Amino acid sequence: MSSLNVQLLLTGNELMSGDIIDSNSAMIAQLFKDLGIEISRKVTIADDATLLQQEIESMSQSADILIINGGLGPTVDDITASILANVVNQPLVENTKALQHIEAWALRRQATLNAPNLKQTLLPKNAEIVHNRIGSAVGININHNSCEIYCTPGVPKELEIMFCEEIIKDITNKFKQQLTQGNFVDISRLHTFGIGESNLQEMIHNEIPQWSTDIELGFRAEYPVVEIKLTTRNKELHLIKEETINQIKSILNDHIIDATNERPKKLAEYVIDLLKSKEQTITIAESCTGGLISSQITEIAGSSQVFEAGFITYSNKIKSQMLDVNSKTIEAHGAVSKDTVKEMALGALTKSDADYVIAVTGIAGPTGGTPTKPLGSVWIAWGTREDLRTQYLCVKGERKLFQRTVSARSLDLIRRYILKSKTKPRYVTN
Amino acid sequence: MSSLNVQLLLTGNELMSGDIIDSNSAMIAQLFKDLGIEISRKVTIADDATLLQQEIESMSQSADILIINGGLGPTVDDITASILANVVNQPLVENTKALQHIEAWALRRQATLNAPNLKQTLLPKNAEIVHNRIGSAVGININHNSCEIYCTPGVPKELEIMFCEEIIKDITNKFKQQLTQGNFVDISRLHTFGIGESNLQEMIHNEIPQWSTDIELGFRAEYPVVEIKLTTRNKELHLIKEETINQIKSILNDHIIDATNERPKKLAEYVIDLLKSKEQTITIAESCTGGLISSQITEIAGSSQVFEAGFITYSNKIKSQMLDVNSKTIEAHGAVSKDTVKEMALGALTKSDADYVIAVTGIAGPTGGTPTKPLGSVWIAWGTREDLRTQYLCVKGERKLFQRTVSARSLDLIRRYILKSKTKPRYVTN
Repeated sequence: MSSLNVQLLLTGNELMSGDIIDSNSAMIAQLFKDLGIEISRKVTIADDATLLQQEIESMSQSADILIINGGLGPTVDDITASILANVVNQPLVENTKALQHIEAWALRRQATLNAPNLKQTLLPKNAEIVHNRIGSAVGININHNSCEIYCTPGVPKELEIMFCEEIIKDITNKFKQQLTQGNFVDISRLHTFGIGESNLQEMIHNEIPQWSTDIELGFRAEYPVVEIKLTTRNKELHLIKEETINQIKSILNDHIIDATNERPKKLAEYVIDLLKSKEQTITIAESCTGGLISSQITEIAGSSQVFEAGFITYSNKIKSQMLDVNSKTIEAHGAVSKDTVKEMALGALTKSDADYVIAVTGIAGPTGGTPTKPLGSVWIAWGTREDLRTQYLCVKGERKLFQRTVSARSLDLIRRYILKSKTKPRYVTN
Repeated sequence: MSSLNVQLLLTGNELMSGDIIDSNSAMIAQLFKDLGIEISRKVTIADDATLLQQEIESMSQSADILIINGGLGPTVDDITASILANVVNQPLVENTKALQHIEAWALRRQATLNAPNLKQTLLPKNAEIVHNRIGSAVGININHNSCEIYCTPGVPKELEIMFCEEIIKDITNKFKQQLTQGNFVDISRLHTFGIGESNLQEMIHNEIPQWSTDIELGFRAEYPVVEIKLTTRNKELHLIKEETINQIKSILNDHIIDATNERPKKLAEYVIDLLKSKEQTITIAESCTGGLISSQITEIAGSSQVFEAGFITYSNKIKSQMLDVNSKTIEAHGAVSKDTVKEMALGALTKSDADYVIAVTGIAGPTGGTPTKPLGSVWIAWGTREDLRTQYLCVKGERKLFQRTVSARSLDLIRRYILKSKTKPRYVTN
């Protein structure tokens, strides 16, 4: 990684009050990583003029690059440009390029400029604008205390485009020397599903007692996937790391969903890719997940090649009407039962002509549990008409987490099925 | 707000690398707000021993309360307890209460304790544990530099429970005096749907030119809802604020979805509440949204009272098979047409016996657009069998945003329909 000291200052009442969740800094970090830059420190404060001025001044004293995010918008609570003018001791003036930018922006939208929009053209004298291809707010670039300061918009899509198209190039240009002096870092990632973080570490430690101290082992849980990260800082270690990765693969077998070292895909993407390669289709019959599995599939571009029909059969009556589930089956065994889920799956296959099916019926809560079928009980059916599998699971967690876990495990079960996996996932305990 | 200086230190490589998004600090801020406490500053750093030690030392010098979040987990990269021991200059010892805690935790899960788990019982000598009702990691409380330090787990649900059940009580107890001396702040919130932030401000400024300078106006966009926030710091201003709110209500009419000053609900919750009060039901027929509208409804507890059936008809063939859409209608007008969406809606009403319906068919992209039906084209039908409305919209944005926007507008259209709204939303332009 480079020796540059890069810091991030996020501003906004909504970030301090908890009214919104900051996703921008994660995006900035990911984009910097490709340059070999690590962000060393991140400070977040409210839209408070005094605090903002202090923090810009103090951060610019220790950082080589300071990214300020937020506060460039049109409304009265957006104060970054005027505070930056104070810090650099310059007047706030109408910037011709910013004016041209916003006029072009308005023209594209066939909108007329209003006073809040025009406020966005007032920048510190001597500041450079940073082009914003989609939004009304231009970015600001200025050097202060030998620190390159970039002010960026809070709207995530605008920030991303401004970073990718403008700021990265500018930084690459201005810090060419430091960026090529970075040390060697080699990171490998394995994405896993179905085993918790501490169990993963325990399994790896037990099975590989002779762990090389030159390989850093890290874990990152991003529900529902856990990433295992192996970092080495020496080119000579390449072979020993490859060997370690192979050992981990044989310990975890099909709990590893991706070892390509790319950013993890969504579970649904793996299923869609498998189905596309076989030119086959899937249908989904959902009770307790209420459309979540289908929407996770159809969220992916190109899913229409493998998905034609989904059935959300929330009530018993509709299970019979839509999927021909025999009402006597439900009477005898209940809606959450092996027999019902089987008939749901077969009904969905018949009605859709699909090759594969997932069917789920369970008790999401917060009410509806019984002593024999507690909250979290779910029956899943998956496979094909000729080879239909079923499984009971008891999934802990409140309603939304229950639905997400059942969706994830269902997609994992059909992924394993299509891959002809011979091993049993650890979340199947009976 | 209270005069306490409260600061937040978030730790974790995954927070700096951008591998995960921090939602914990928003939760902490929301919980503190109920105590009248504002967080003044938030610093985020990687799992770096030197940086962590420096930051704890320096923040504890200026803060009355310092919340440290993350790094209490079982794995090797979790270093908060050992660094805190260095800062307070105490040895790291096995804490009897922490051991009892983790033994009880393991017993509940019928699990055996492994070495990573036992690492979690090593705490600075003299530290108090903070109970964690659901997870393996206890929290840590210690006073240093006259600052109350609380170390909390990174897992969101554990953090929330620990905060609500333990930390808030402890702080209320320890800072009783400061918490009752807070200044008066009165915040009113209006939640709106369908108008962008800068247009909202422009409309309010134009229609209320005599705005009182004692009322702070703020905006917060949390897709798909924009919140308008009015803050006063003087009890005398209550009446004038109420009057201003009434003026805003008459400007924005049914674009205001909630004026109860509560946290905004999801759009689906408003629809479900309206249906419950009428004891009526809804069904959803989805093509381009692929189950998203249904899953937004079924995510809400109690939705089974108003929702029995959803139809995901992604292909043309399935539209005919599942919803009796005449194949000639699709041939003559296309799948994205007024006639097709009407037949989808009527089919869904017939098959489900529901009182209300939403049907959508459109082009989510990234491919499939034509000159006459560009990407983003969507036909929505909503209402009842006797009074079925239809509308064409062209919704900009990539696939996932398109799906979210169409879902939100569909739910807003049925909300307005059930409310018998007489005004047209601004996103309907033709």
